[in-house]
Amino acid sequence: MGDTILSDLWTEILIPVCAVIGIAFSFFQYVIVSKVKLSPDSPANNGKNGYSESLIEEEEGLNDHNIVRKCAEIQNAISEGATSFLYTEYQYVGIFMVPFAVLIFLFLGSVDGFSTKNKACTYDSSRTCKPALATALFSTIAFVLGGITSLISGFLGMKIATYANARTTLEARKGVGKAFIVAFRSGAVMGFLLAANGLLVLYITINVFKVYYGDDWEGLFEAITGYGLGGSAMALFGRVGGGIYTKAADVGADLVGKIERNIPEDDPRNPAVIADNVGDNVGDIAGMGSDLFGSYAEASCAALVVASISSFGIDHDFTGMLYPLLVSSIGIVVCLITTLFATDFYEIKAVQDIEPTLKRQLVISTILMTIGIAVVSWIALPSSFTIFNFGVQKEVKNWQLFLCVGVGLWAGLIIGFVTEYYTSNAYSPVQDVADSCRTGAATNIIFGLALGYKSVIIPIFAIAASIFVSFSFAAMYGIAMSALGMLSTIATGLAIDAYGPISDNAGGIAEMAGMSHRIRERTDALDAAGNTTAAIGKGFAIGSAALVSLALFGAFVSRASISNVDVLTPKVFIGLLVGAMLPYWFSAMTMKSVGSAALKMVEEVRRQFNTIPGLMEGTAKPDYATCVKISTDASIKEMIPPGALVMLTPLIVGTLFGVETLSGVLAGSLVSGVQIAISASNTGGAWDNAKKYIEAGASAHAKTLGPKGSDPHKAAVIGDTVGDPLKDTSGPSLNILIKLMAVESLVFAPFFATHGGILFKIF
Amino acid sequence: MGDTILSDLWTEILIPVCAVIGIAFSFFQYVIVSKVKLSPDSPANNGKNGYSESLIEEEEGLNDHNIVRKCAEIQNAISEGATSFLYTEYQYVGIFMVPFAVLIFLFLGSVDGFSTKNKACTYDSSRTCKPALATALFSTIAFVLGGITSLISGFLGMKIATYANARTTLEARKGVGKAFIVAFRSGAVMGFLLAANGLLVLYITINVFKVYYGDDWEGLFEAITGYGLGGSAMALFGRVGGGIYTKAADVGADLVGKIERNIPEDDPRNPAVIADNVGDNVGDIAGMGSDLFGSYAEASCAALVVASISSFGIDHDFTGMLYPLLVSSIGIVVCLITTLFATDFYEIKAVQDIEPTLKRQLVISTILMTIGIAVVSWIALPSSFTIFNFGVQKEVKNWQLFLCVGVGLWAGLIIGFVTEYYTSNAYSPVQDVADSCRTGAATNIIFGLALGYKSVIIPIFAIAASIFVSFSFAAMYGIAMSALGMLSTIATGLAIDAYGPISDNAGGIAEMAGMSHRIRERTDALDAAGNTTAAIGKGFAIGSAALVSLALFGAFVSRASISNVDVLTPKVFIGLLVGAMLPYWFSAMTMKSVGSAALKMVEEVRRQFNTIPGLMEGTAKPDYATCVKISTDASIKEMIPPGALVMLTPLIVGTLFGVETLSGVLAGSLVSGVQIAISASNTGGAWDNAKKYIEAGASAHAKTLGPKGSDPHKAAVIGDTVGDPLKDTSGPSLNILIKLMAVESLVFAPFFATHGGILFKIF
Repeated sequence: MGDTILSDLWTEILIPVCAVIGIAFSFFQYVIVSKVKLSPDSPANNGKNGYSESLIEEEEGLNDHNIVRKCAEIQNAISEGATSFLYTEYQYVGIFMVPFAVLIFLFLGSVDGFSTKNKACTYDSSRTCKPALATALFSTIAFVLGGITSLISGFLGMKIATYANARTTLEARKGVGKAFIVAFRSGAVMGFLLAANGLLVLYITINVFKVYYGDDWEGLFEAITGYGLGGSAMALFGRVGGGIYTKAADVGADLVGKIERNIPEDDPRNPAVIADNVGDNVGDIAGMGSDLFGSYAEASCAALVVASISSFGIDHDFTGMLYPLLVSSIGIVVCLITTLFATDFYEIKAVQDIEPTLKRQLVISTILMTIGIAVVSWIALPSSFTIFNFGVQKEVKNWQLFLCVGVGLWAGLIIGFVTEYYTSNAYSPVQDVADSCRTGAATNIIFGLALGYKSVIIPIFAIAASIFVSFSFAAMYGIAMSALGMLSTIATGLAIDAYGPISDNAGGIAEMAGMSHRIRERTDALDAAGNTTAAIGKGFAIGSAALVSLALFGAFVSRASISNVDVLTPKVFIGLLVGAMLPYWFSAMTMKSVGSAALKMVEEVRRQFNTIPGLMEGTAKPDYATCVKISTDASIKEMIPPGALVMLTPLIVGTLFGVETLSGVLAGSLVSGVQIAISASNTGGAWDNAKKYIEAGASAHAKTLGPKGSDPHKAAVIGDTVGDPLKDTSGPSLNILIKLMAVESLVFAPFFATHGGILFKIF
Repeated sequence: MGDTILSDLWTEILIPVCAVIGIAFSFFQYVIVSKVKLSPDSPANNGKNGYSESLIEEEEGLNDHNIVRKCAEIQNAISEGATSFLYTEYQYVGIFMVPFAVLIFLFLGSVDGFSTKNKACTYDSSRTCKPALATALFSTIAFVLGGITSLISGFLGMKIATYANARTTLEARKGVGKAFIVAFRSGAVMGFLLAANGLLVLYITINVFKVYYGDDWEGLFEAITGYGLGGSAMALFGRVGGGIYTKAADVGADLVGKIERNIPEDDPRNPAVIADNVGDNVGDIAGMGSDLFGSYAEASCAALVVASISSFGIDHDFTGMLYPLLVSSIGIVVCLITTLFATDFYEIKAVQDIEPTLKRQLVISTILMTIGIAVVSWIALPSSFTIFNFGVQKEVKNWQLFLCVGVGLWAGLIIGFVTEYYTSNAYSPVQDVADSCRTGAATNIIFGLALGYKSVIIPIFAIAASIFVSFSFAAMYGIAMSALGMLSTIATGLAIDAYGPISDNAGGIAEMAGMSHRIRERTDALDAAGNTTAAIGKGFAIGSAALVSLALFGAFVSRASISNVDVLTPKVFIGLLVGAMLPYWFSAMTMKSVGSAALKMVEEVRRQFNTIPGLMEGTAKPDYATCVKISTDASIKEMIPPGALVMLTPLIVGTLFGVETLSGVLAGSLVSGVQIAISASNTGGAWDNAKKYIEAGASAHAKTLGPKGSDPHKAAVIGDTVGDPLKDTSGPSLNILIKLMAVESLVFAPFFATHGGILFKIF
């Protein structure tokens, strides 16, 4: 043991300062983006974008006030649609969240029969801790706070994205570099805001709760886990609802527009086109923002709750205790420097620079962060400390914990690169899938599914290696920190992720505003790079979700006082088997939802094409609102059953069958869900890019498959359509499934340990 | 404790007698089928088929000697192709099996350093047991015997099926009832031969080994597990090789014939048509025969090895010890009676009678078997006995064991009916999938995948319930007996299963022989019913595989002296995670193999259509042999990597990482593999029947989607093609993956326990 170099006071200062720096940086990027004017009187601003006038590659239509006005109009429609959907969604989710908050209070309060008396601590019975009722109350408050922070994260992300999309389109008139910089800066606004905001709220909550809890850190950090649950519960509905919305619109628009009517994507004559673009913002942006915020919140909570029963908690070593938050704080600074490499130190001049620039962001942030973690581990940790490993004490050196965080960080990079290899059309896997389109849609589907299955191999080994290393060094604390390591560069990850849908929207606006083909080509190039980075982002999200849920699982097991989860007992094994089935059940629900909603959308779009005279000729306007309504209604209605499945399973299993079976369910859904999530998102990404590969026709091989409208291209479009719900609805929602069930079990652990397993008690 | 009603002598008599009855019954059915003559001089036989002349519905072309000759010719070509493929396959598998046998001997012999001295028994150190070298030798012999029995099972099945197919076609001229009876009797020949043969070989092996082992039952039954390993290893290659063969030919034939050239299925002008029909026999018949024989052998071995360390083994209670074989013996008698309900007590007069008759077989056999199990449990078990449950003794009553076997049997029926619900086009799930073809192939694929995912829910609950009940009553012995319960009606199951491909072939022969449309319609009706029953058969196979591998897993854990498999240790957890990934890796390999082989087939078929003048007009004959060669070469080459993955994983993991990690791998692959296997086979079955639903156009709804060649029908064909490798290659092979890894671990358990975990020992 020993003292840390960083004093508690400096810790108290450092964390909020980093968070505030992140928010300030986010605001600064916002100001730069806002200089692109969306009003006709001042068509464009060139002064402060980091580029001088001389670097403008080409100018086109800069003075066409009409186009600017049209862009502003479309942006407005998208923004309004997204805002109104999110309001509706949040209302319904609120209906679910409020009774759930009450449930948390009642269940946790009942542990000690709503007694207001202090009790002996669970891990150190010589000391007194706050009553279970307090934990119930504060858990509920943390839950609500987590939910609200998640809601704000998603909402702000959407606002920024809908603010940036038309601006990216307008900048695309000046060249691809300019457009890239606007889209990327906007992504950074979202990334830094979310990361910093999440950190700040968590930090403030801890300090406020500490006023009541005082020395009872065990109770304090147990209550804090409610924050993770709130964040993740919100994220679940955001991902599922947004995912169904966006894919119902996308699939519906494509099936009629691209396949039946042979009109291009985002054509303003397509009645579902606004719904499609709204979908990008509510699904890919708001949903993803909530999702990654949830991962971050849960990883932090898992690390904190495990740390609270380590020597940090017992010796009240505040700096050591807040090590997880310090890692995240340094992460914000590292990401800030990384961002400058894309926006200021380096300059994009041609289309082929985009993807390397984005990939370089990942590499730079990982390398810098490794140094950052080393520094934090050196100054904020004593040279050695002890943690509890299911009842046994274990000594950990600070360099060992550095390795735990580092292995997670680098495993994330490996997963990112493997994902890129399997989903980018620069490599042979996607090219093979494209080639299989020669013999039709069936072989395309077979090859795509096989690709997705194959793409899980290396990520699983990477995750397994991180688990082994970090567990060997620091048990469940190591795993939680490994997850936080993977998420430590979340600001950069989110910036890259958000960049994709913004570019996608920008392309849509260019098409709808009737801008020239060249503009559309530029936004398409931005979008293609965004497609791969989106897949990488999903890879990260899944990898970190696996580690996070394992850490939460470990914390749950500790909290529920189970010393081992033996697969050879029937209670555990049936849990494992049923748990492994849940991701399938969940995917069946979400995919069917997208399918049914898309069918409705197809019927409406067909109806409009058939009944509105002059629609195909462009003389009459389609009824966008009805399509928006179909997507909204479908997603609101359809998000309830899968949401309920995930939220209620731990409660039902824990209450009726007890903690052993619940442990089995958590482990089963974790090991099975992570495979489906990775394969679904890579299969979808590969199909999308196989289609883009044929469309772009950049190589001699690609040219033999194209052009647009050829039979192989039609087969590729079918694959892309099947991939949509896989990669944007069911796949990414599965992360949340595994994390949420784990964090919920952790929050309810005291209740299950006291009152759980009713069925087995009766029989 | 207490004596059993059945004496040891009667046990020794009863088992072989039942086996011989099964073989005799099989021969009797064969004689009846052989009365249908394939030589023109005596066109058909009507005397002894169980029908009198007056029941012949319609006669057509009975005296057309030309047609009979043509059928005989085609049958000959199919039979030759299948025989030559199996010879080639067995040669290659032999190359793999011989060194593997040597490996078994060396690994197991090394446990005690090849010492020839007797040693203290593992479970009762006061007694002496035979040396490890003897176990090594006898395990190797058992392994070879199991392999050969499996080989014979597959080969004889294929011979019977290729003997029956043309006979079914010829009988179809006389009516659907006649054709059904021939196909079903032929299935019964295979079913009874396999079940009885498997039982007899196992029984004889035990008795011969006993001559050496004497009182050392522990060693005796440990050596016997080699029989299961041999059977399953053979089955793996049979399933994978046969599966790739049949689907490469099927997909290749359909892609060019049905989609591009618009000629019907099995049209003689299609160069891949013979390969396709050969494939049905080597994949669906020989592969499935080996597979189910493997399940049966493993379930028996698992039960025996667990029983050998129970009070049966310790007290040398021979009747109690052989209870598993007695259950199988009664199963043969029960299935014999059940068969009479289809062939003699009841008579099929119309097409719609077929499916109910087949389903009734399942119900009748289950009800009769319940009585059979009750009787066996009453006479062959003492009223109570003790078993070992990972070191703890547990007392079991005979009625409790009856419940264990019964719950497995009935869970099988539930799985069967759920499978039927999700794959038969009489119910809404398949009809919904068919309906989604309205909007094209993409929605068809999305709905089909969702259906498959959904279809796992109830089977998993049924399996979980069986596990819970049987484990609670009798630990791992209960699970093994539950698996045997599910497999106790294997003769009937196999008869129904084999009936499908025989009918499928019969239809092909009718088409190729140029017989009238009406004959084809009759064989199609037989085939449609066969499709659903095939899916049911696969459901059984998967359900029993899950139970069998859990039982084997339990036996392995006992044998490797692990007292608990704690998910919370990193060694176990990474095993669990990687194990859950293996089915994906395996599926990726097999699906890609089918895809690539199908691409080659498509190119060859296209080449023949383009270069052979007069082929489309029917004036020139296609070159069938080249297509047969493509399928043969592809399947031989492509079965090696997935086979090696499954065979080597336990060896590598056990040797390098040790028994804990291996336990994790087994549990992970089990819980994850069973889900993929069920969903893949149901998705494939549903797509196939959705297509048939549209083609048949039996309801008003179906008529709006059809006819053949309509856009929805084309979309349905794409789904069917994607489903082919899912339901006939990767899905069913996964059973073998999970079983084989478990039985292999069990056989090598003594080695792993002594020398395993090298990596962890070094570091």
